Amino acid sequence: MNNGLLTEAAGLISRVRQSKPLIHQITNYVTVNDCANVTLAIGASPVMADDADEVAEIVAISSALVLNMGTLNNRVVEAMIAAGQKANESGVPVVLDPVGAGASQLRNRTARTLLERIQFSVIRGNISEIKCLAGANANTRGVDASETDAAGGPEGGVGIARLLARQYNCVVAITGETDIVSDGVRTLCIQNGHKALGSITGTGCMCSALIGSFCGAGSDDLVAAAAGVMSMGIAGEIAFEQAGHKGLGSYRVALIDQIGNLGGETICARGKLYEPEY
Amino acid sequence: MNNGLLTEAAGLISRVRQSKPLIHQITNYVTVNDCANVTLAIGASPVMADDADEVAEIVAISSALVLNMGTLNNRVVEAMIAAGQKANESGVPVVLDPVGAGASQLRNRTARTLLERIQFSVIRGNISEIKCLAGANANTRGVDASETDAAGGPEGGVGIARLLARQYNCVVAITGETDIVSDGVRTLCIQNGHKALGSITGTGCMCSALIGSFCGAGSDDLVAAAAGVMSMGIAGEIAFEQAGHKGLGSYRVALIDQIGNLGGETICARGKLYEPEY
Amino acid sequence: MNNGLLTEAAGLISRVRQSKPLIHQITNYVTVNDCANVTLAIGASPVMADDADEVAEIVAISSALVLNMGTLNNRVVEAMIAAGQKANESGVPVVLDPVGAGASQLRNRTARTLLERIQFSVIRGNISEIKCLAGANANTRGVDASETDAAGGPEGGVGIARLLARQYNCVVAITGETDIVSDGVRTLCIQNGHKALGSITGTGCMCSALIGSFCGAGSDDLVAAAAGVMSMGIAGEIAFEQAGHKGLGSYRVALIDQIGNLGGETICARGKLYEPEY
Repeated sequence: MNNGLLTEAAGLISRVRQSKPLIHQITNYVTVNDCANVTLAIGASPVMADDADEVAEIVAISSALVLNMGTLNNRVVEAMIAAGQKANESGVPVVLDPVGAGASQLRNRTARTLLERIQFSVIRGNISEIKCLAGANANTRGVDASETDAAGGPEGGVGIARLLARQYNCVVAITGETDIVSDGVRTLCIQNGHKALGSITGTGCMCSALIGSFCGAGSDDLVAAAAGVMSMGIAGEIAFEQAGHKGLGSYRVALIDQIGNLGGETICARGKLYEPEY
Repeated sequence: MNNGLLTEAAGLISRVRQSKPLIHQITNYVTVNDCANVTLAIGASPVMADDADEVAEIVAISSALVLNMGTLNNRVVEAMIAAGQKANESGVPVVLDPVGAGASQLRNRTARTLLERIQFSVIRGNISEIKCLAGANANTRGVDASETDAAGGPEGGVGIARLLARQYNCVVAITGETDIVSDGVRTLCIQNGHKALGSITGTGCMCSALIGSFCGAGSDDLVAAAAGVMSMGIAGEIAFEQAGHKGLGSYRVALIDQIGNLGGETICARGKLYEPEY
Repeated sequence: MNNGLLTEAAGLISRVRQSKPLIHQITNYVTVNDCANVTLAIGASPVMADDADEVAEIVAISSALVLNMGTLNNRVVEAMIAAGQKANESGVPVVLDPVGAGASQLRNRTARTLLERIQFSVIRGNISEIKCLAGANANTRGVDASETDAAGGPEGGVGIARLLARQYNCVVAITGETDIVSDGVRTLCIQNGHKALGSITGTGCMCSALIGSFCGAGSDDLVAAAAGVMSMGIAGEIAFEQAGHKGLGSYRVALIDQIGNLGGETICARGKLYEPEY
């Protein structure tokens, strides 16, 4: 365990709840409501404007921007670029969730364009999406990681995360059985979470919204990413203890309950964070 | 308390449940599912068509139209105008929810255009949005009211609501700690609700959907607006008593439960409606 | 009861849970989150891509495609045609949910275009939508069946379902008080379900997502349609027993719980499937 980092990540929870940062999210219509509710639950304030005519104004009053490629179309890509560039000019941190990268040319092309034109603070994806961004051969299956890509275990992921983090000078978070967060120099593994998180839609998107919320509270990007990933994982564990036996609908409700109830002391008590030896 | 108005508002609940009015809503993709469910829960029937090619036909078979500016784009604005004008021609009441007015030029421009080209029955927003529409200096923060704008307390809001109601010859509802409803001559304050309503997304949008449902049941606009605001507030109170201790996810589920369970007698018993002296 | 068919439908549940088919859905933004969650709950994997630039690639890696006309616009219709044609080329079964057919020229025209250009495996709608597709006089009321259309009882529906099934050489499912599934030769009536399903949004769309999931597990289309309809109905019954007294929000959560908990033995025990004599 890395107690210093754990304490720092835990401290972010109260910082978000006090500062209530405005988090601008350009995201997909499948999980947008969950992203808004999780942003409110962690203590931040969501705004989901996505028209190219207004995103620069909205991002200028925001504390962080999250770009999520879930349901891509050309109208929205234009808005993402305008928002991302304005965020970079204004010093607003930008989080990328490259949903489904590897699944289509449109997604690959869009991810590449966004990475060329915007400086990201954090990129969060599953192993298939991150491999795709790093130029490795990936086997994205729709919007989920393929089993082939996940088979390498955390060791393969750590290398890929470091590589992509250095390539784009940002923090990379790979979420999966073991989550990995790296800024290219320092790398962390996180072993929170529950496999039931994979059986409700949007837990990846919600995790990116949490990372954006922590970035918006003025945190170091590596700590923000780790805090977002741990918050989702720990809430997912407690929610399963409470409602897992009832079913997936109840589990999803309990997940939002637990994000809202999460305090720094729970992060400290339950966070499983370590620096890998490889 | 104004018992006559309270009784009238309470009577609307059973009228909606009997007549099941079709409520056409052109709204945002963040809270659209909540709006549909709340419309069904109060006893009306939602239809969410938003293409300019069909909105005139849809509104012609509907009992009310709700225009919500949550996730604006030019495609949808065109549809809003077509639907609103057809509604005016057909005598269908129109409710405006000017989400985020004040936060961008696109929103200000759109609100102005809609107000110029459509006669609204009810406009519902938070204090920042309504101040913006009234031409006052507002400080919209994303889609939430700013604390500065709310600081004036109900007295400031009452003046703004009256002004805007006279300016556009309609009912204006400002929701906040104290809700205000005015037709420019008669003004009502409502003190129902719970602050937890601000911690889940879409409660403003859902309130507008409820107002639309009551307008669609053939009510006087002032009573419809008061009934919508009280229904949301009272359901929010009971839901908190039942599920507030569990967390925000459970609270949101309980809110829909309570909208569905709401009867006129509960409105009469719990409604806190008064005419302000200033 | 038809025990052979019941057993076959029941067996599909475990087949879906084992093969986890990828189900591509081009659907509306009102109920898309519910469709994604119900797809995951039954054991399949949803992907909601809707841009014409990528749908052919996505459908090519999918096991079934669901086209849902809920919130139609021209951008999405183009994507539906591209996806449907690619699915036909690749042998991927396609399910049509003609939401609101009969309510506007746009919907009628789109339904006709889709039926002309795509070979469907299953069409699922309410009686008004299916009558409209069959060229009969229908009285669609927004997105719900009209009472006039439903008044004929199952006998009228059986005739319409057979007719449309023969006309388009596919399986037709009409959901309502008695559900009807027909391939033009063989016809089944199903008497599961609960009227509370009509008081939450998206239960029709979710049923189509379930049918798509069963088609994607490699089933015979008639059995897949019957299994989808029964799954929704039975989950709706058990959910009402558990949570109906609490309210509509809780009922909706319990519905997803029960879809996730559904096993073949429950289908066998509770399925009410019979071949009508008329």
